Amino acid sequence: MRKIAVFGSAFNPPSLGHKSVIESLTHFDLILLVPSIAHAWGKPMLEYSTRCKLVEAFIGDIALNNVESCSIEARIVEPGKSVTTYQLLEALQTHYPDDTLTFVVGPDNLLNFGKFYHSEMILDKYSVMSCPETVKVRSTDIRNRLANGEYVEDLTTPKVATLLAELSLYRTPSSHTSL
Amino acid sequence: MRKIAVFGSAFNPPSLGHKSVIESLTHFDLILLVPSIAHAWGKPMLEYSTRCKLVEAFIGDIALNNVESCSIEARIVEPGKSVTTYQLLEALQTHYPDDTLTFVVGPDNLLNFGKFYHSEMILDKYSVMSCPETVKVRSTDIRNRLANGEYVEDLTTPKVATLLAELSLYRTPSSHTSL
Repeated sequence: MRKIAVFGSAFNPPSLGHKSVIESLTHFDLILLVPSIAHAWGKPMLEYSTRCKLVEAFIGDIALNNVESCSIEARIVEPGKSVTTYQLLEALQTHYPDDTLTFVVGPDNLLNFGKFYHSEMILDKYSVMSCPETVKVRSTDIRNRLANGEYVEDLTTPKVATLLAELSLYRTPSSHTSL
Repeated sequence: MRKIAVFGSAFNPPSLGHKSVIESLTHFDLILLVPSIAHAWGKPMLEYSTRCKLVEAFIGDIALNNVESCSIEARIVEPGKSVTTYQLLEALQTHYPDDTLTFVVGPDNLLNFGKFYHSEMILDKYSVMSCPETVKVRSTDIRNRLANGEYVEDLTTPKVATLLAELSLYRTPSSHTSL
């Protein structure tokens, strides 16, 4: 029975802030990075497949062998909707029936956890954990820099920075503004 | 740098519900059971030293070598006050400067975490984790049974049940009613 940490985020794009959260989770047997397929409040994000590529590049930079990306949201999403945390955890528990799941949230979301859909049902079945943000870099900082044509090597990992440059991502300030 | 789970509770008395939470924490290097020296809302509890003895008996029954009791609250409490979670974590971090601390709460307390004293400061520095109660036994169930002269062997561990009987604890229904 493994302990699996489920780290859901837009990863729009992955940042050193995300990396610091992952480094708080090294006692788990497996850390799943789960890019959100759609934003709960409909904010625009970079295309899902591109964010998945960025997450793969990000994992390539993280020197931990128990971190994996997970695209399960693509298989369970319903058209025009986002995937709720409860739906995600239920689908993952079906996929990993013998393991125990811990959903990872940021400090802000822990304080507002009661607003999550089916929050009591989540807490009744799953562990929920907030980790401190030891490195305070947000994805929005990276997007703002890129929109201004500035470098981002100090805000994310090397392979992510390279991919952001190669694909000319986030060059327009008017879109992809969430998180 | 060890990962330490901090499980604070009245342990009034330790129950199979507490045991089920501890079994959710086996991926931590160390699990500290921290009996609260006084209740935050002043509810009466069995004397602290007796609850510490019950916790020692409880640990003796748990087949895990990384569970320890911690009586740090006796060293930091101020007369007439309870110890806040923030005070507890600050004192433990001073005692374990190289380790990362995760405070463990029940699902109810996670939903009300914003009401904890200095909740934002706690989340800024420490991990906070809620575990599901896979065994729904409360200390109050044990106290009610004992007050009625009934057996409690199915609600707690053997050494705790023996100690509760030997010391004739919780025999009067009018006191020790908290949690």
